[in-house]
Amino acid sequence: MDESIRLYTATLGAELVHRTISEKDGLEAAFIKTGDGEVELLRPMSEETPVGKFLAKRGPGLHHVAYAVPDIDRALAEARASGLELIDAEPRVGLHGTRIAFLHPKTMGGVLTELVEA
Amino acid sequence: MDESIRLYTATLGAELVHRTISEKDGLEAAFIKTGDGEVELLRPMSEETPVGKFLAKRGPGLHHVAYAVPDIDRALAEARASGLELIDAEPRVGLHGTRIAFLHPKTMGGVLTELVEA
Repeated sequence: MDESIRLYTATLGAELVHRTISEKDGLEAAFIKTGDGEVELLRPMSEETPVGKFLAKRGPGLHHVAYAVPDIDRALAEARASGLELIDAEPRVGLHGTRIAFLHPKTMGGVLTELVEA
Repeated sequence: MDESIRLYTATLGAELVHRTISEKDGLEAAFIKTGDGEVELLRPMSEETPVGKFLAKRGPGLHHVAYAVPDIDRALAEARASGLELIDAEPRVGLHGTRIAFLHPKTMGGVLTELVEA
């Protein structure tokens, strides 16, 4: 994590906004401001977590994409009604302290997709 | 490509901005506006292209991330001076008609990274 933060801040010149550990999710996360967007660096604290399994199987790389939505209950209901496969049937609290839900890559063109209530 | 465009437009409500074929790159591309960002859908026209090889090996999913930079010559010189491994030693013209250059995933934490002159 230290090395990845150095890459995005010292080398690329982006700003570290926040760094946190979630025991519940088994993740350390660092949030890097990149213009209008944000890069979320994730370090799994065990191989048993979803991110740990991804890292063991695929190595470091792009894990998911997140979109801000104004109303996550409505967005999730619309996703369900459209036939998209949900990972989270109901919103839960994410690393930012905001309400989030993941859509399964199966019906998202292979892309694990997160909705984040803005 | 048609199915992926439908996913992002009809299902998710984002806007298709442009769709193009580059014979030179062996790629069909569709650009989808997502808030302040853009999703670039890529379809390789043969398995011999870099994207074709990626797709054959990993299946559909996240391929790369691109950042807008004000001056790509300067950004590329700074990346080189920082010890980052470059795929493109000099900027070239990308699918948007803008000047682009790719940084190798090896020194970018496993993430294929594109610089795009804004």
